[in-house]
Amino acid sequence: MTSNSEKPLHPLDPVSFTDESKAVIDFIADYYKNIEKYPVQSKVETGYLTAKLPDSAPYCPDSLEDILEDVKESILPGLTHWQSPSFFAYYQASSSTAGFLGEMLCSGFNVVGFNWISSPAATELESIVLDWMGKMLKLPSSFLFSGTGGGVIHGTTCEAVVCTLAAARDKALRELGGNWENITKLVVYASDQTHFTFRKAAKLVGIPPSNFRLIQTSFATEFSMSPEPLRLAIEDDIESGLVPFYICATIGTTACGAVDPIAELGKAANKYKLWLHIDAAHAGSACICPEFRHFLDGVELANSVSMNPHKWFLTNMDCCCLWVKEPRYLVDSLSSNPEYLENNASKSKAVVDYKDWQVALSRRFRALKLWIVIRRHGVANLMHHIRSDISLAKQFEALVAKDDRFEIVVPRKLVLIFFRLKPKHELDSGELNCKLLDAINSSGRAFMTHGVVGGIYAIRCVIGATLTEERHLKDLWNLIQEKARFLLLQYNE
Amino acid sequence: MTSNSEKPLHPLDPVSFTDESKAVIDFIADYYKNIEKYPVQSKVETGYLTAKLPDSAPYCPDSLEDILEDVKESILPGLTHWQSPSFFAYYQASSSTAGFLGEMLCSGFNVVGFNWISSPAATELESIVLDWMGKMLKLPSSFLFSGTGGGVIHGTTCEAVVCTLAAARDKALRELGGNWENITKLVVYASDQTHFTFRKAAKLVGIPPSNFRLIQTSFATEFSMSPEPLRLAIEDDIESGLVPFYICATIGTTACGAVDPIAELGKAANKYKLWLHIDAAHAGSACICPEFRHFLDGVELANSVSMNPHKWFLTNMDCCCLWVKEPRYLVDSLSSNPEYLENNASKSKAVVDYKDWQVALSRRFRALKLWIVIRRHGVANLMHHIRSDISLAKQFEALVAKDDRFEIVVPRKLVLIFFRLKPKHELDSGELNCKLLDAINSSGRAFMTHGVVGGIYAIRCVIGATLTEERHLKDLWNLIQEKARFLLLQYNE
Repeated sequence: MTSNSEKPLHPLDPVSFTDESKAVIDFIADYYKNIEKYPVQSKVETGYLTAKLPDSAPYCPDSLEDILEDVKESILPGLTHWQSPSFFAYYQASSSTAGFLGEMLCSGFNVVGFNWISSPAATELESIVLDWMGKMLKLPSSFLFSGTGGGVIHGTTCEAVVCTLAAARDKALRELGGNWENITKLVVYASDQTHFTFRKAAKLVGIPPSNFRLIQTSFATEFSMSPEPLRLAIEDDIESGLVPFYICATIGTTACGAVDPIAELGKAANKYKLWLHIDAAHAGSACICPEFRHFLDGVELANSVSMNPHKWFLTNMDCCCLWVKEPRYLVDSLSSNPEYLENNASKSKAVVDYKDWQVALSRRFRALKLWIVIRRHGVANLMHHIRSDISLAKQFEALVAKDDRFEIVVPRKLVLIFFRLKPKHELDSGELNCKLLDAINSSGRAFMTHGVVGGIYAIRCVIGATLTEERHLKDLWNLIQEKARFLLLQYNE
Repeated sequence: MTSNSEKPLHPLDPVSFTDESKAVIDFIADYYKNIEKYPVQSKVETGYLTAKLPDSAPYCPDSLEDILEDVKESILPGLTHWQSPSFFAYYQASSSTAGFLGEMLCSGFNVVGFNWISSPAATELESIVLDWMGKMLKLPSSFLFSGTGGGVIHGTTCEAVVCTLAAARDKALRELGGNWENITKLVVYASDQTHFTFRKAAKLVGIPPSNFRLIQTSFATEFSMSPEPLRLAIEDDIESGLVPFYICATIGTTACGAVDPIAELGKAANKYKLWLHIDAAHAGSACICPEFRHFLDGVELANSVSMNPHKWFLTNMDCCCLWVKEPRYLVDSLSSNPEYLENNASKSKAVVDYKDWQVALSRRFRALKLWIVIRRHGVANLMHHIRSDISLAKQFEALVAKDDRFEIVVPRKLVLIFFRLKPKHELDSGELNCKLLDAINSSGRAFMTHGVVGGIYAIRCVIGATLTEERHLKDLWNLIQEKARFLLLQYNE
């Protein structure tokens, strides 16, 4: 490693690049080896880092040793360890060596493939790998480049929803005669369980918040969206002179993992000519296994579908696959062709220019990591990975179910167990389970989060961190029981 | 390295993580060592990769050797080499070992810091490093957390513009009484040189394209936006019952590097109460040097300012710093607080939850790389880096200027030389220079792009790739002369 020195550095010298990068590899490998020693959720106080770091940049360079020492002493204590095997919160960001290698190549080449010519391999590999992934999910050929559609890698689902909303909005405005004033008539639909980024995205593209319809869900449908109230809402809006144009269905909602009935919602969407988007951010990964593919039944009725390999598909952050049936609607809405980007390939219309399929101009070469994740594991291992997580989830669910003090609040679909400690008095339930969750999380031995559906506060345990093994779930269950015992003593006094 | 095997892989085993990562480091270091051997702009035909790769995913895993062999044989020929020392196109994506190390740590930890609690270090380091960067640029304290404002790292300028547009739009709608129908009255302003993503962003947030005013620029002001026509346009719109609400000024436009007069535009913005955003995507990096800080004079009159360390600040893609004077407008527009993200830290309002400062929920820990770039080089080396690029640009400009066959079309501000081969007949100019550029780029020995301002087609030569040295500019100039000589023979026949 190089020493602290005041003479100008060569910022990209291959020799020091190799030495310093390998030192960081060792640092990260050590982190993985020791990851179980850290409290899963960080225990720092707000503002802890401001107190530790200088308030302005150093004039002279620091050595890598000093920087890594600071990462160890100041950054690691402030991390909530998403790669910990005892991280059961939110939905995981599962990473892998293969995903990491892809990120390294992406960052090492550091090309910006906004159009084909700016790096043909970046565009073409993305198109190829989106077709691979689409075929693994058995998407109809209408979503594939080898068929009549196509796909793109965005950073997040929110971006996919923003772009499809903008495409559908501009299509609807054109069909209404091109008068932009009609934007205030456009109405969007989702369920009250749909991820909040849907509302954020709809507002972002200028849909009035008074035109958001969130169809109510309940225990009766395990919190999936029913087609009947959706149809009624659409009919109501049409009668009021409004223009329904977009519906977002979810496979695996955030709070409790509900699955909307795609085929039935698709029929309604088609009848009223709404754009149907399917958000399969987390659960989509499972659909590569034949036994879970049924979640996507009816996908042929949708206009677009997205899922995030960065959640449960071993692909390091960030990576959201979006497929659309008619890419021209995305391009119509998002394209622009300034003179300074003119080139013969774009003019020929024989290439994909991904800048017209996303919000920004610049883009990282994210396809590399998804390509390497798929090749390095192979479909066989990827299915094995999904199945072993589901098997762990079943085991954990069985532990909860056979303990009379607990109950499963909404039946498990895949790897999310939504459960609570049963209160003696229903009114105590929220407080009791909130205290239980706090006690578990502050132990530092595991991290889970919560959800509220149908007025019931429950704990979410999601299986899916790459390093999680059976023993970690046994430890978790012991921890939950230990904290529950203590709490129940207090509440039953 | 591991061999091709059908038995399940351990996706994140620390030992194979180390071995495979180091093999990829060696691969990337080799790439840098040999980068001058590749044609700078890729020479592949459209569809080349589809012909080389299988059309569906492998069932069994491939070995890393096989994957790296394919990267070498199939991906490298399709890259346009942004890290080549002879890459003078667009604006560079300058990378460095330090930026790469930061990317590795980001990808290795793979935390998702959407709110403070989900990884306090990710949020706090971002706030600290934005203050560091803001102080290096001598931004007023009204843009810093240590003052009354604050900053965030987005992926790209387009995202920064989308978010500030949404914040300004919602502020304007509230001031108009909260009626969403007024969205069709809102008007945005920029110059005809402003990056096209401004129009894309404005349309994305629902501003009618008929309400985009692009102030005409000309040779008289070296293509910077004049305050007088801006004032007239604003007055006109107010008279027509419209509501001017946002203006985007640029420091260093894309085509020819024009610099808008911030102080004068700021006065107009303040007078009419418009949100002023300053896009200093490329040129912002230079403002850490006292001799170039004057470009930002008047920044105190702006509401927001952004610049991209991923362009000229040795920070690997992607990294765009956005500072805002009143973060609450961003948060008002972009926040949402679903039950499943509720936590005591957010409720206390004592923390920053960056999900409310950006489009998406999920976010990578990008602050690490900017922090390491700044610390590993120190402000001294970073200023040296900017100054040596500008010195190279001056040398190249001198070569062009002293050759009578060429002319500088718009005077250089920083590192963009905008020049053309003088035609015998003005009508031939576009064709002649287009042919010259094609001849240079197809040689594979350098890559530049073009721009058109005031009807004049000219070649853009931007200095700033990390590996560029004086000899590469000498080679470029020889190449230009060689191709020009040949072309002039044809045209002067």
